[in-house]
Amino acid sequence: MAAEKNSTSEDSLKENLFGVSEELVQAISSALENNDAPKIQALIKDLHAADVSDLIISLNSESRKQFVSIIKDSLNPDVLANLDIPTRVQVLKMLGPNLIAEALKSLASDDALEVLSSLGKEHQAKVLQSLPSRERAMFEKFLSYPKDSAGRLMQRELVCVPPFWTVSETLNFIKNYHDLPEHFYTIYIIDPRHHPLGEISLSLLLRQQEETVVSDIMSQDMRSIQVTKDQEEVAFAFRHYGLVSAPVIDETGRIVGMITVDDVVDVIGEEVEEDILHIAKVHELHVNESVTNTAYWRIRWLIITLVNTLIASFVIAQFQVSIQKMTALSFLMTINAAMGGNSGMQVVTIVVRAIATRQLRESDIWRSVSREVFVSLITGTFFAFLLGSIAAFWVNDIWLGIILAVALFCNMLWAAFAGTMLPILIHRLGLDPAVSAGPILTTTTDVFGYAIFLGLATLILL
Amino acid sequence: MAAEKNSTSEDSLKENLFGVSEELVQAISSALENNDAPKIQALIKDLHAADVSDLIISLNSESRKQFVSIIKDSLNPDVLANLDIPTRVQVLKMLGPNLIAEALKSLASDDALEVLSSLGKEHQAKVLQSLPSRERAMFEKFLSYPKDSAGRLMQRELVCVPPFWTVSETLNFIKNYHDLPEHFYTIYIIDPRHHPLGEISLSLLLRQQEETVVSDIMSQDMRSIQVTKDQEEVAFAFRHYGLVSAPVIDETGRIVGMITVDDVVDVIGEEVEEDILHIAKVHELHVNESVTNTAYWRIRWLIITLVNTLIASFVIAQFQVSIQKMTALSFLMTINAAMGGNSGMQVVTIVVRAIATRQLRESDIWRSVSREVFVSLITGTFFAFLLGSIAAFWVNDIWLGIILAVALFCNMLWAAFAGTMLPILIHRLGLDPAVSAGPILTTTTDVFGYAIFLGLATLILL
Repeated sequence: MAAEKNSTSEDSLKENLFGVSEELVQAISSALENNDAPKIQALIKDLHAADVSDLIISLNSESRKQFVSIIKDSLNPDVLANLDIPTRVQVLKMLGPNLIAEALKSLASDDALEVLSSLGKEHQAKVLQSLPSRERAMFEKFLSYPKDSAGRLMQRELVCVPPFWTVSETLNFIKNYHDLPEHFYTIYIIDPRHHPLGEISLSLLLRQQEETVVSDIMSQDMRSIQVTKDQEEVAFAFRHYGLVSAPVIDETGRIVGMITVDDVVDVIGEEVEEDILHIAKVHELHVNESVTNTAYWRIRWLIITLVNTLIASFVIAQFQVSIQKMTALSFLMTINAAMGGNSGMQVVTIVVRAIATRQLRESDIWRSVSREVFVSLITGTFFAFLLGSIAAFWVNDIWLGIILAVALFCNMLWAAFAGTMLPILIHRLGLDPAVSAGPILTTTTDVFGYAIFLGLATLILL
Repeated sequence: MAAEKNSTSEDSLKENLFGVSEELVQAISSALENNDAPKIQALIKDLHAADVSDLIISLNSESRKQFVSIIKDSLNPDVLANLDIPTRVQVLKMLGPNLIAEALKSLASDDALEVLSSLGKEHQAKVLQSLPSRERAMFEKFLSYPKDSAGRLMQRELVCVPPFWTVSETLNFIKNYHDLPEHFYTIYIIDPRHHPLGEISLSLLLRQQEETVVSDIMSQDMRSIQVTKDQEEVAFAFRHYGLVSAPVIDETGRIVGMITVDDVVDVIGEEVEEDILHIAKVHELHVNESVTNTAYWRIRWLIITLVNTLIASFVIAQFQVSIQKMTALSFLMTINAAMGGNSGMQVVTIVVRAIATRQLRESDIWRSVSREVFVSLITGTFFAFLLGSIAAFWVNDIWLGIILAVALFCNMLWAAFAGTMLPILIHRLGLDPAVSAGPILTTTTDVFGYAIFLGLATLILL
């Protein structure tokens, strides 16, 4: 096996279309074991920066240090921008302020900012001091924008021209002016106060007559984004309107940068992922977070489960006498709580996502509630009948089956109603429903589920 | 209040930056009540197609019919592409084959295909018949690509030039040839067999000397996507490499279309959303799915919960005698199951996402498992101590507290181990871990949680 792997040529190792191949990881690992620096340089020579980042992430702490010290001086700065935060912090520590400052200078301003923001305050100050005063001022300005705002996402480099220029003047400017971004898709037309008036996509510009004035062909249906807007709103606008790029303006309406769709792609993924993590009560996104940090956040989230389950236990404890008289209650009661909780979480998830993607608007609330209640009439009837029958046969007591069926039906109806209303109410209070709607709901379905089943059984059978 | 709302001018109604304002929805509703067609036309005149779609989605079934019949003849075809599937199906039914065929002709090929695919087989055939034979052949070819493949995502329109052309020939071609896509960011260089050789971004092309030959400046670091590749892989490549566009090739290597990042934006969101929905056991993404359809899928997913909870009940039932002797077991046992299940779901979620985003590779498995086990040693100790103490005080029985603590610790350790291994094993079997890892895990934590707590209590205390 080992011999076979070594015989794979270096070329074929790089051929994998998406991501880093397992073979490459192993080739790198064995080169690291032999401390074979030239081999490593050769292996990563033609690799995309994103793949080098993946390689670094996949190495363990020791090999990572060794690997970084080998590639340090020829490091493509884009690699830093592509690392996850815990790994990036580790790698930046190995580089030191001067190498970081060099890297920042050659990165696009949005990527440079991302790298800079992952440093601690002190380290950040040191790096800023190593930068020329112009760059330092720019980064300090950028860092003053709120976290997760458009200002943190945008790139400063953009192409702006005055409205009276002709197409040929504009094309000449693009051709001869050297301080333009590497890639851009749109040029902006601005007035003397630097307010954006309109935009033209490059592909449109190329198809115009040379003497046409740009203000005659620019599109005014442009969506300027305030520099302080939250990145979630920015991502929503890009996704909703299928935008490719948008100008960013400051509080006075001056254009200060632009956001392109490739910057937003990550945000879209992250914003949706954040909701997943909240539903599953997890904090961190990175598999590379430290063990103690991870444990801290897991505990914080599990405290919610703790409170939830203690409340449910307290409710059950009130019916100890009934359970002692009829022990079948002890194993049937969990069915009602589980079905109510799970059907409620289905509703909460749909509603939380509908709020996040703005598919659900204020005027729709009652339509959504009634829709979910209707659905639960069907699902509730189905499971009430099914589980009621199973219970009746299992414990050979038709009344206990009927009681479970009634309790289950009521709990699922409640789950549908509360599962719709709770996220909406929490959202109205300005809180994040992805975080709190689930736990609150399952607490109510537990409490309600145990109370109604054990209560009815106590009243009717005992 | 009502007077105030009516006094808002029509202009300000359209000013909202992102999405449709509540005021506009109400203005449209009241115009619909008065059947005031000109008012409605005026209100939506300058509205973005995506916002018109949102409006249609937000109307109830009756108003929707009325609204569509008013705007039918002046409908911007992009509105159709932006609707969610259930609403689109409804609207397409109102339009009829000829209007649909007209709309398809003016849409970009990828959007047209999306609209066409939401029709039923019969309806689709009728619409295809209303199309000119050239378009019909193209759509039939496109529809032959697998669902969710690159072929369904790409647009056919793209700009290709031979390698021996100069920059000025290329720019002239773009300027004068009329059958080009409306927006494009990259041109592709192809050989006589239509195989892509390289690409040049427009912004780079514009900065070259006129007599330069394109093959000298093209980038060969281009990632061609096979037409049958799954859209999840496509989205991954775009997100990973920060791509703006990529050529799509057929099985013979011929270029057949291109995918641009704005097409992928939706896929990225959807793929992550799919994972959320699976974790929460929900099928549908659209709040507009019919009640019966929704109920059907909710029931299918809840069957998993049903099996899970019945297995857990069966385990509890084995300990009826113990519970009768010591009823405190009945309310303490649920704590162990809840904590184990929730801590396991945290792990499953992290691992499922790490697999989906390829942060977790084969060689990392043991590192991940040991990391999660270490985390659970901390969290398990914390909660064992905390809940053990609470239980001991509550029921005034130190031994019961110790038993709960031991059972909880073991269950959380198991949840960490199984929560990491299960998604990885399921993924290796070629199945989707987002669907099945959660339910299987919580079944094991329930069974294990009840069995070890009730078992230890029976052995030691009774």
